[in-house]
Order: sequence, then structure tokens, then C-alpha cells
Amino acid sequence: MKTRLTETLGIELPVLLAPMAMISGGRLAAEVTRAGGLGLIGAGYGDAKWLQREVDLAEGARVGVGFITWSLAQNPGLLDTALARRPAAVMLSFGDLEPFASPIRAAGVPLIAQVQTLDQAGRALDAGADILVAQGGEAGGHGMGGRSTFTFVPDLADYVAARSAETPVVAAGGVADGRGVAAALVLGADGVLVGTRLWASSEALVSPVAQRRGIAASGDDTLRTRVYDVARQLDWPDEYDVRALRNSFLETWHGHDAELAAQRQEVIGRYEKAVAAEDFNVAAVLVGEAVGLVHDVRPAAELVREMVRDARRILNR
Amino acid sequence: MKTRLTETLGIELPVLLAPMAMISGGRLAAEVTRAGGLGLIGAGYGDAKWLQREVDLAEGARVGVGFITWSLAQNPGLLDTALARRPAAVMLSFGDLEPFASPIRAAGVPLIAQVQTLDQAGRALDAGADILVAQGGEAGGHGMGGRSTFTFVPDLADYVAARSAETPVVAAGGVADGRGVAAALVLGADGVLVGTRLWASSEALVSPVAQRRGIAASGDDTLRTRVYDVARQLDWPDEYDVRALRNSFLETWHGHDAELAAQRQEVIGRYEKAVAAEDFNVAAVLVGEAVGLVHDVRPAAELVREMVRDARRILNR
Repeated sequence: MKTRLTETLGIELPVLLAPMAMISGGRLAAEVTRAGGLGLIGAGYGDAKWLQREVDLAEGARVGVGFITWSLAQNPGLLDTALARRPAAVMLSFGDLEPFASPIRAAGVPLIAQVQTLDQAGRALDAGADILVAQGGEAGGHGMGGRSTFTFVPDLADYVAARSAETPVVAAGGVADGRGVAAALVLGADGVLVGTRLWASSEALVSPVAQRRGIAASGDDTLRTRVYDVARQLDWPDEYDVRALRNSFLETWHGHDAELAAQRQEVIGRYEKAVAAEDFNVAAVLVGEAVGLVHDVRPAAELVREMVRDARRILNR
Repeated sequence: MKTRLTETLGIELPVLLAPMAMISGGRLAAEVTRAGGLGLIGAGYGDAKWLQREVDLAEGARVGVGFITWSLAQNPGLLDTALARRPAAVMLSFGDLEPFASPIRAAGVPLIAQVQTLDQAGRALDAGADILVAQGGEAGGHGMGGRSTFTFVPDLADYVAARSAETPVVAAGGVADGRGVAAALVLGADGVLVGTRLWASSEALVSPVAQRRGIAASGDDTLRTRVYDVARQLDWPDEYDVRALRNSFLETWHGHDAELAAQRQEVIGRYEKAVAAEDFNVAAVLVGEAVGLVHDVRPAAELVREMVRDARRILNR
């Protein structure tokens, strides 16, 4: 399955692993690459030791690294750590990528920019992004709720066609099976970025207790919220929120910002205890709407190959 | 292009006109039917005279009628008015359809139920719905923001396959061109319901001033809000809101519920004047995220045929 994405990155299958912070580790990334896609390690909130270890765990497989841009700005040395390991690509999401584009390009590393609006896409192209990821609000974890994959992908494809026709567009948010891969391609994408489906893989750095909750959930069971960033003491810019599985913690706090602010310290303490105890009535299960399409935990390589095989079958019908 | 939808409704193309309240009139519905799809008149908030006139304007073309279910419950006689005209189908959206299912089925008229959650789908099947429309939050006008077309369609397709395998599933929200039709089909839908693209048709009952705003807009320029239901004095149940084009009225009031409530009477007066003056800095332009894919106003029949032709070309690639 050749697309502009597979050609730009020198891969066989147009599937990227979403660099889910602290969840997409080296082993998972290596397995996605081994299957023919490209694994991206989720370097998250700036822990150089964690990143070094996970790159080591990829055992020489060709993998990339993804950063949360506003967080990288607080710890820019982490980009040097990543570039020193000669990643197959660097992906930047959530914030101003401009300061990081030059060193990435100077290192000869493809720059993947994840965007949530057409305006962000324009700025990413200005900065020299080689690949654009269109993230719809269906996606699990952080993002923006304003756009959905179904319209944002063709919108961005048209925008790119008019401005920078050779730049591949990747669909993110909601892609969890062959139908999603096929739909992304017919909507105008050159490939997909997969989070939730690979969150439920054998190699993901996720508690099996959380995975069991995800498998039992319906696509109607997630929502976008800011509650978890308060509980986790993460300074996300206002325009972003997070899609997570509903649980009793969100039932209590979502939509009750004033009370949450007033009881902040107590909530943080309770949250930390719940994480340690793997109590996902409280702790975050960061999955997207596509969780309703996920019914098992399987090896990542098998999942990637199956998605592409099913997409091919659907498109050949 | 044969699908279970075309077979159930006896039509040629798997395209339904969204019964946009007071916008999808008889002429527009007749043109969609003439093109090979099925036009649905938007009977909206219960005006029998309007409905009679619009059915007359369809001039004998085979068209259906769509209702806002909670509003129909306040004026149930309107269903008799519709059924007396032997519609090709009745579509019910937004509320408990159970009380209306029996008379519709007794009249031998196919019942189309639009749903926004899997739970609603279950209730629609229990009530005897013949066709389910999966509405994603991308859609313009009223709906729920919880699900997106890209994941809700395959979710609902799986749900229906397990419970009522012969029931066609229709994708609504975000479908505005051949890419959208093709994507809906590969996601598991048997057809599409089209609003925004046909809102910008020659036959839609829309002010050309509003249409020009829509054409100039990007897909990033819409949002979901409750402000317009306050300004229009419509008693929509809490779980629904409306997707509309951003304008200075929404800039002022969206997210400022308390102030809006306090100045309600004044806002209503100002709103009514703006509607009369076709001032769309204030008056509502109810379009979906797909408005970014709409660049002109053309005859509806031409648009429907082009969408299907393009979808066919994409799927044959």
C-alpha cells in the first residue's frame, strides 16, 4: 500500500503509532515499525532518562519520537537527546513548533506536525513541516474538540493541495480498524496515526486493569474534559483538553470547575493514591471514541497488519 | 449504486436530504428525489399550513417528511397531516419516537430514526424503526456533540449487525462531497443524509445572504452552542445543542449563560430584528463542519449526482 506517506518516510504501510506520552514506549514503537508502519515513542513531559531507556528498548528498530511542544519548550535539551539517537522522524504536537523546526531539519530528520485547525496547519507549513497530521476531536488524550476527523481530513487535504501539494496528510482520531484506515484514505489522507487501538496492545505501557476497562467500554463512554489536567497538575494551555473514559471521578468533577478549584489539593492527593492503586474509578483512562471498536488486547504488529489488510479488502470490494 | 438503503426505500442513489426545519421545502425535496435520492421535507416546529404548502410544491414527487420528535409531541396532529399525503418515509429525530412509531408503521410508511447514541439506537429498534441515521456532532443545526461520524457509523453498524442485521444505517454529519459519501460507505453505512451541502443549493429555503456567508466560511468557523435556542425561544431539551457559524452574536453570548439569561428579553428582541433584516452577524447560520467543503450554490439535483459520481470514482480507484 504505497502513498505519499510511505514514500516520504520509507515505510511499507501507511500507519504511524501515536506517540502517546509514557504509553508508546520503545517496544511498542519497534513492533509497529516491524509490522511495516512507523513507531513513534511518546516522549511526553520531558523525562530524558525515560526517553533514553525507551529508545534503547527499541533495540535498533527504526523509530521516531513525539513531543508535546509546549512541554518541550520547558526542557528543550530533550530534543538534542532525541536527535542524538537519529530518530526516523520527530513529531511535534500542541504548541508553537517554530523554535524546534530548524534543529530537526538541520539533523535531516523528517518533521511531522500534528494540527487541530487550518490556521495551525498554515503555521506548521511555514515552519517547514514535512508531514501534517490532522487530529480530530475523536482522538483519546489531549487535543481540541473543535474539529472532527471526517471533515478535517478533506479540509486539510484541500488546504495542503493548494499550498504545498507534496506534503502528506495523516488522519488521527477515530482510526481503530480497517474501515477507519480505508475511510481516512478515501477522505484524502495519505495514512493514519493510531492511538487507542494500539493503547490496547500487548506492548503498550498501560495497566491491564485500564485496558480491561477500555475493552468493556462503548464509544459513547468517553468525553472531553479538563479535570484530569487539574488532578495531574499539568499546565496545559487553555485551548486543549483531554478525551478520557467516563468514570465516577469525572461524574463528580466534570462541569464543576469552581468546586474542583476550591478542593484542588485534596483532589490531587486522592488522584495520586488512585494511580498508585490502579483505581480507574478515579485514575485516567485516556482513550478515544474509537474505544467502542476495540474488543481485545493483542500484539501491536498483528493489529497493524490486520488494519491494513482489512482496509485493502474493503477498498477492493 | 445499490445498497440496503436504496433497496429499502426503492431509490437509485443512497442519498437522503436532511429534513432541515423550514429549509428543506418541497421543491428541494423533489429535486433530490428527481436526482435519484430521497428528499425529506423538514416539517420543523409544527406548522401544518407550511407542511401542506411544501408537500404541494413537491408536485407529486415521491418525498418524505421529517419531524423534530419532541416538538411533534406538542402537536401530534401534524403526523396525521403528513401521513394523509402518503409520504415515501417519515423521519423522526430528537426525542422519544415510540408514541409515533405505530401510526407510521400502520400507514405502511418506512420509519427513519435519527440517533446520536447507541442507547437511542436500541430504543429506535425496539420501536420498530426501519432505517437508522447515525448523526455525528459535525452536523449543522441541532444534535448532540458526544459522537463523531467517523467512529459512530462503524459503532452503529456493528451494533445493528448484532441486533437487527437487515436494518440500513445512514451516515449524517460531515458528508458534503464524493469523499464523504465514499468514506461513509467504507465505514459501514448504507448511505448518507446530507444537510449543509444542500443548504447551499438553489432550491433551499435559505437567504442568499446567509449562503454567501457559508461559502466564505472555513470548516473551523462553526461551533456548538445553546445561545440560539434562547434567542429563538425554542424549548429544546438540555441534551441537544446546535452547530452554527461563528458570528459577533455568538462571540458576545456563547459561554456567557448567566448574562444571556439576565438579558433574555432584550436579546430576543434584538434577534428578531436581525432575522427580519437578514443581519447574519446576529441571526443564525445553521451549518455543519462540512461548510468548509462548500464553495458554491448550485442546483440540488446536480450536487447529488456529482457526490455519487465522485464517490464511485474514488471507490473504483
